[in-house]
Formats: sequence, C-alpha cells, structure tokens
Amino acid sequence: MKTACEMSCTLLSIVLLLSCISLSNAGITSRYMRRLAASTDIPEDSPYFKVPEGFNAPQQVHITQGDYEGNAVIVSWVTTEEPGDSKVYYGKEPGSNYTDYVVGTAGTYSFYNYTSGFIHHSTISGLEFNTKYYYTLGAGQSPREFWFVTPPESELDTPYTFGVIGDLGQTFDSLSTLQHYMNSSGQSLLYVGDLSYADNYPFDNNVRWDTWGRFVEPSTAYQPWIWTAGNHELDYIPEVGETEPFKPFTHRYLTPYKATNSTSQLWYSIKRGPATIIVLSSYSAYGKYTPQYKWFLNALAAVDRSVTPWLIVLVHSPWYNSNTYHYMEGETMRVIFEPFIVQYKVDIVFAGHVHAYERTYPVSNVKYDIVNALCTPEKNETAPVYVVIGDGGNIEGLAGVYTQPQPAYSAFREASFGHGLFEIYNHTHAYFTWHRNQDGEKVAADSAIILNKYWYSATSA
Amino acid sequence: MKTACEMSCTLLSIVLLLSCISLSNAGITSRYMRRLAASTDIPEDSPYFKVPEGFNAPQQVHITQGDYEGNAVIVSWVTTEEPGDSKVYYGKEPGSNYTDYVVGTAGTYSFYNYTSGFIHHSTISGLEFNTKYYYTLGAGQSPREFWFVTPPESELDTPYTFGVIGDLGQTFDSLSTLQHYMNSSGQSLLYVGDLSYADNYPFDNNVRWDTWGRFVEPSTAYQPWIWTAGNHELDYIPEVGETEPFKPFTHRYLTPYKATNSTSQLWYSIKRGPATIIVLSSYSAYGKYTPQYKWFLNALAAVDRSVTPWLIVLVHSPWYNSNTYHYMEGETMRVIFEPFIVQYKVDIVFAGHVHAYERTYPVSNVKYDIVNALCTPEKNETAPVYVVIGDGGNIEGLAGVYTQPQPAYSAFREASFGHGLFEIYNHTHAYFTWHRNQDGEKVAADSAIILNKYWYSATSA
Repeated sequence: MKTACEMSCTLLSIVLLLSCISLSNAGITSRYMRRLAASTDIPEDSPYFKVPEGFNAPQQVHITQGDYEGNAVIVSWVTTEEPGDSKVYYGKEPGSNYTDYVVGTAGTYSFYNYTSGFIHHSTISGLEFNTKYYYTLGAGQSPREFWFVTPPESELDTPYTFGVIGDLGQTFDSLSTLQHYMNSSGQSLLYVGDLSYADNYPFDNNVRWDTWGRFVEPSTAYQPWIWTAGNHELDYIPEVGETEPFKPFTHRYLTPYKATNSTSQLWYSIKRGPATIIVLSSYSAYGKYTPQYKWFLNALAAVDRSVTPWLIVLVHSPWYNSNTYHYMEGETMRVIFEPFIVQYKVDIVFAGHVHAYERTYPVSNVKYDIVNALCTPEKNETAPVYVVIGDGGNIEGLAGVYTQPQPAYSAFREASFGHGLFEIYNHTHAYFTWHRNQDGEKVAADSAIILNKYWYSATSA
Repeated sequence: MKTACEMSCTLLSIVLLLSCISLSNAGITSRYMRRLAASTDIPEDSPYFKVPEGFNAPQQVHITQGDYEGNAVIVSWVTTEEPGDSKVYYGKEPGSNYTDYVVGTAGTYSFYNYTSGFIHHSTISGLEFNTKYYYTLGAGQSPREFWFVTPPESELDTPYTFGVIGDLGQTFDSLSTLQHYMNSSGQSLLYVGDLSYADNYPFDNNVRWDTWGRFVEPSTAYQPWIWTAGNHELDYIPEVGETEPFKPFTHRYLTPYKATNSTSQLWYSIKRGPATIIVLSSYSAYGKYTPQYKWFLNALAAVDRSVTPWLIVLVHSPWYNSNTYHYMEGETMRVIFEPFIVQYKVDIVFAGHVHAYERTYPVSNVKYDIVNALCTPEKNETAPVYVVIGDGGNIEGLAGVYTQPQPAYSAFREASFGHGLFEIYNHTHAYFTWHRNQDGEKVAADSAIILNKYWYSATSA
C-alpha cells in the first residue's frame, strides 16, 4: 500500500507532467541508448539456475491466474528424479498449518533428443480476494514453501499495479531486468511473450527452458505472470520432426483459457482487480471465422467496464512500432483487429518482439477503405496507447535503429533494457512508467498518464 | 487437342480483344445480374446424390494430384457397409487388364452425433506423363471403374487448361455450374474453397459432406481437383465439443503437402504441366515465423520458371474484391503476402469466398510504409491479376451489391453463377475466360489475355 505522502507526491508528478505535455506534443527519441551488441547468456552452471537441494525437490515453480475472476491460481513446477505427487498444500498461515490441498496432474514431453522432467500443474480454486496464501510443494520429499497474494475483488475504483516485461531471455541483462522488477511495486506481471530463447540453441535445446524456469522462479513462484506466446515459443523444427508449434511452451505454461471458452492456451482473458486483460496470439490463425477471431470478439463484448474499468490487451508482435526491427510485422493483425480495439475502447496494448521500448500517443488508423488513401495513423484520444516493451534483455541484444523521422504517432522511444509498471489509481486515471535497468528502481525514464478510454470521456462530457 | 481452325479463331479473338483493351481501360460492372435470393439445396434423396448400387460399393470417388511433379494421383473414396479393402487396380487398358494395384488406408471420423463411412486414400505413384489410366475400386465386391489422364511433363511451352470453381455447394445452381464445367475443355480443376456447405445445417450435418462427395463424383473421379480450404471447411463448433478446425475436410480431402515439406494439408504446392500452383490457407496462421509463412517463402523460391513458366496462387479469401460482401476481409493476408507475390511475379491469384465474379487488372499495393500514405492499389503490369470466382452456386445465393464507384483496380465484375477456364498457350500467353451458367459453354461472359509476368517482360524487353 502507498502512504498518503507517496500518493500526493505521485499526484504532484502527474500535474507537473500534464503541464509538460500541454507545452509540447512532439515525440521523443531518447538519446540514451546502450550496448547494441548481443547480450551474454548466463552459463548453465550459474547459481542463478541452481537446482534446489533435496531429493526430487520441486523446481521451476511458477504461478498464474487460474480462472476468469481471480479466485484461482494455477501452480506449476517440475520434478526430475521421479514424478512425485502433484499435491499443493495451502493455507493462510505459513509452516505446516495448512488447511487444504489440491492434487493436479503431471506429465512429460519430448522434443527431438530431449525429454522433460515431470511437469506438474495444480489449480487452487475458491480463494478469497485480497488475501495472502502460503503453499508448499514436494511435501514428504523435499518440501518448499512459497506464497502469493490474491487480487482485490474487481470494483470500479480498485488500485492495482501490474508489471510489464517482454522478451526476457536469460542473460545478465535479463537478470538485471528481473531484479529491478522484483524491487518494484508490481503485484502481478503482464508478460508479452518470448520467454527462454531456448530456440537460439541447437535443436532448440530444451535444457534452456529448464534453466529459464529456475531463473525466474524468485518472482514467478510468488506472483502470477500472465503469459503471452511469442515467436520464440513456436519451437518449430520440421527438419527433425518437431512439427507441432508451441510444444514446450504449452506443456510448461498453462493458462486459464477454458474459463472464457477459448479452445487454445494461446488466447484467453482474465479479470484481475480493476482490469480485464485479453491475451492474443500473433502466431495463430486470426482471420475472420477462425477460433481466435470469434473468441476475441466475444471476449471484448463480455467486458463490463463498470466492474473492470480498465481493458488491457497483450500481444507479442506490436501493431505500432517505429523501430526498423520487425517494422510492419504486426500489420497483418492490426488491420483485422484494430477496428474492434478502437470500438471497444481498449485502454492500452502491450507488445514485445522489438528489443527496445516505445510508447505511442493514443492513435488509430481505422479509416482505410482501400480506395480512400486514408491510411495514416492519427491521434485519437478515444483510441488506445500502444507500448512496445520487448526490452527484457535477451541474448539477441538491443534493437537500436529507428525509422526517421520519428513518426507522429510515436511519443517516446529508446533502445535500453528495462521493464514497465502500469499503476491503476481509479476508474479514470492510471500511470504508466518505464524503468531502464541503468537507473534505480524509483526512476522513471518515461512516464505517461493514461486516461481511461471508456470512463474518462464519459465523466468529462 | 484443339484443331488448327479453333486455334486461329482463338488467336483472332485475342487480337480483337487487345484492340478493345487498348481503346478503353475502364472497369466494367456488368448489368447482367441474376437471382440474388438464396439458392435451393438439392434434396438428400435426389438422383444427383444417388448411392451406387451393390454391396459396399465405392462412393464419393475423387482424385487429386499425389506428388509435386505430376506422376502420382491420390484416389479417395468411401465405403459404408464395411471397410472393404483400400486397393486401387490400375492400368492403361480398361476392363480387367490391369497391370498393377496399390493399397492405401481407410479410417473413419466422428463429428458430434455423426460417424463417417470408411474413408479410403490410396496413392498411385510412378505414372507416366500425358497418359490415360483406368482404375477400379471395390474389386471383389461391387467394382467401379474410372479413368484419368496424367498431365504433360512440365516444359516451357506446354499447353494446358485449368478449370476454376469456388464455393460450389450442392444446389440446383451448383449442378448447373458443375454440368457446364464438365462440358468444358478443363483438364483439371483449381478449386478455391468452400465445398459442401454442410455447416449451414444443424451441427454441421456431415451427411451433407457425403451427398456432396457423390454430387461431384462425375467430375472428381475423372480429373484431379486441386483443393483449397475455405471458411466452410472450418466446421468448428466448440459448443458441442468440436474444437478441431477442418476435421471433416482433412479426413476426406488429402493433398500432397508432404511433397513440398509442408506440415499441413492446408498449404502445399504442385507442378502441373506448365504451371506451379501454390495453395494457401486463409484460416490458418500466416504471421511471420509461422509454419505457413516460412513454407510459402520456400515454395516461391523453389519455382523454376524455365520449367513451369506459370505461377498460380489459390486462396479462399480474396485480397482484391470490390463487392460489399466480405469487403476487406483479405487485407490481413494481403498486407503480409502481397510483397512476395509481386516479388516472385505470380501470374494470377484465384480466390473464392465472395459469391460473384470479379477480375482485376494487374495491380499492386505494396508501397505503404505506415507514414507515406501510399496505400492505393495501382496498375502494375508486372503484378498479378486477381480473380474472385466464388460463384459456384451454393445455398447462400449471390452477392450482388458492389462498392461504388467501381474501383480503378477492378476490370470486370458481375454477380452470376459460373466457372472459369485458364488456358495456357505457351510460356508468354494465357487466356482466362469466365462462363456464366445462363450461357452456353462456348460463350465467355468475360475474358482476358494474361501475359506471363516472368517471361513476357523478359521477351519484350
């Protein structure tokens, strides 16, 4: 919780920022750019990837929301010596004072010459809102205890802070991003795709999926990471018989997709505190009539902004990006989905893919009808802000070459590693900040007040 | 084979047409438009759907090319009383003088409350080019004999005529289209998607897949139909547990996808006589990095225009369409694939989906870079001609409302049922004609000389 002093200080910043914005509305290409070379992966035997001690000790522990409303958590972990059980003991007190347990499932998968450990998934349901729970895995063998806090009940003015990270990988820069984020106020993390970058190793060496699972555990075991699939999750190598896209990812990272009648782990929606979050898949079918397309329209229509005033979309490949890297790759999805995004007054769209940071003004480009030449993005206060935040720090390095001049839709762009925070204050105002790894956690290298697209115009009318 | 008189007559038509084209280049919206109401499906007990006589008689016989080069044929059929064998006897003489046989596989699938008959697929390989073969199914039970002619070997100047049909369905209008086509000179058929329209029946009543298979057998048993998947092949009803898109289609209609290292039946490529045909799937993933995207670029790069001078693309949802029905639905695929289509000098793109006919001039729209406003289709002699031919005659009726005024890219558009013929003369010239069902088969309601994009510019330089 914030103190009164912190709150007033933040509000003062907002007022000052608003003044600045009213003075100038030209986009900023930050001159602060660093190290465009590839980053270095942390070696496999590093302490950051340490296997926990004890026979068959649970490792790679991660949690994510387990239902639509926020009363359930999916707990996932891996054991390697033997299956063990898939029990999660949990309760409101730490230690052995557990009141309940759930039993999930365990399984393995193979990928070329690799066979995974026993991957467990257990869903704890019926949790109370806004409550701290402790949980233990590996009881009877090598028990490990963790905890999480459930989200507040969805109501009109529920403060809540989401972290945002994309394209993390497992380099020393990734570590810096992760450590910065873990010192932030983020209560759960919106992850916009590209996790382990195992596919940069020969035959997508899946050992690097395991090291990544251990690498992020200090955060993922304690707060839900909301998963989006990126291109590095495809793991598609037909030459060696691996023809099923997303195989390692879907075995390791469950999502609560069935709760919103999705038929794929790769697109789903959750309510969490004051926000509805819709997750899309850039690398699945999205043409009209396809499962994802039909589902997306239903998901948008199902949102009740009087319960979850904020509407956030996560997707890997950005629809607005002025970096030369991956330029226009998102067009194929933008042209089909942007009209709905604008119609349903989505507040903010987070994407990854480009290894840099960029924030747009509220913009739209939905007037094109093939013959009218109206195809230029234009500022539109009722349209979303788009944030590219694929700067987690992976092995491929930074994307530092921007298109010139900076297009009118682009508010701020910089090629440094970092993470974002999306602080929701109430149903009309939120504050987005971007934190580069070279700065202390409290420093925002870029920030913007985000006005709620649904409520702000209603209240200001 | 054409007589010398027919050839000279056709050439005269070409000369006359070229004169016309040079006089006027404005698009035509035909005033000839008919019956915009829904068509009537042929009743289930109609003779057009008659089950062949005899115990376990093979039915729904259809063939398609079975390899990349044209030396193989996939023979598919259904038996209903018992599996029977999956043997195809074949040879160059009819009757029982068969020299060989192949044995394929048989299987069933279920869809909600429907279970299919035994669906057989057997591939005959090692066939000679340009040769008539007879084949018999159901030997020992209720034998039925059919025949097909293999394509000529791919060479620079190999005349060949493809038929083109889309969105056929099984109405009395469908019947008219089919009968017209069967009286044409088409040697094999490019089918641009939407086959049976079974999904217009409750729970996608798959009995209508069976009736359709029998309906088209008089053509499909004798010449290869090259299959493209449309939206009516999705058969996606998650509400009753049918969550696997394309299930009936992929069980019934095999394609030689493995021959070009595709990992899906829904996209593949074949050489056939003077043409390479690339089949795409509008309703699968096509974002950069996806299997279809990667495969498509490889397939384009693999084409040798000195062997197959003509390059044809089939896709269901059109990229250029000025009908109000399904307007701009193809944009999501156009924006990602059109640059490659232009780069590789594809000659013609056939699409269905819109229940009408339209032909464009050679056009492209590939200069857009988000900020330059260059998003208007422009005439470009090195770019493909696009043909919409979803006017097979299905139950949904004609799409008769066009955008106004006719856009500059549109050469001819009319909402009548019909089929097309693509006559390849040599490596520089082909002739496309569209035949509406109200006319006799020899009448072309629209026609255009198609200049080869790769060779014509080379030879005329």
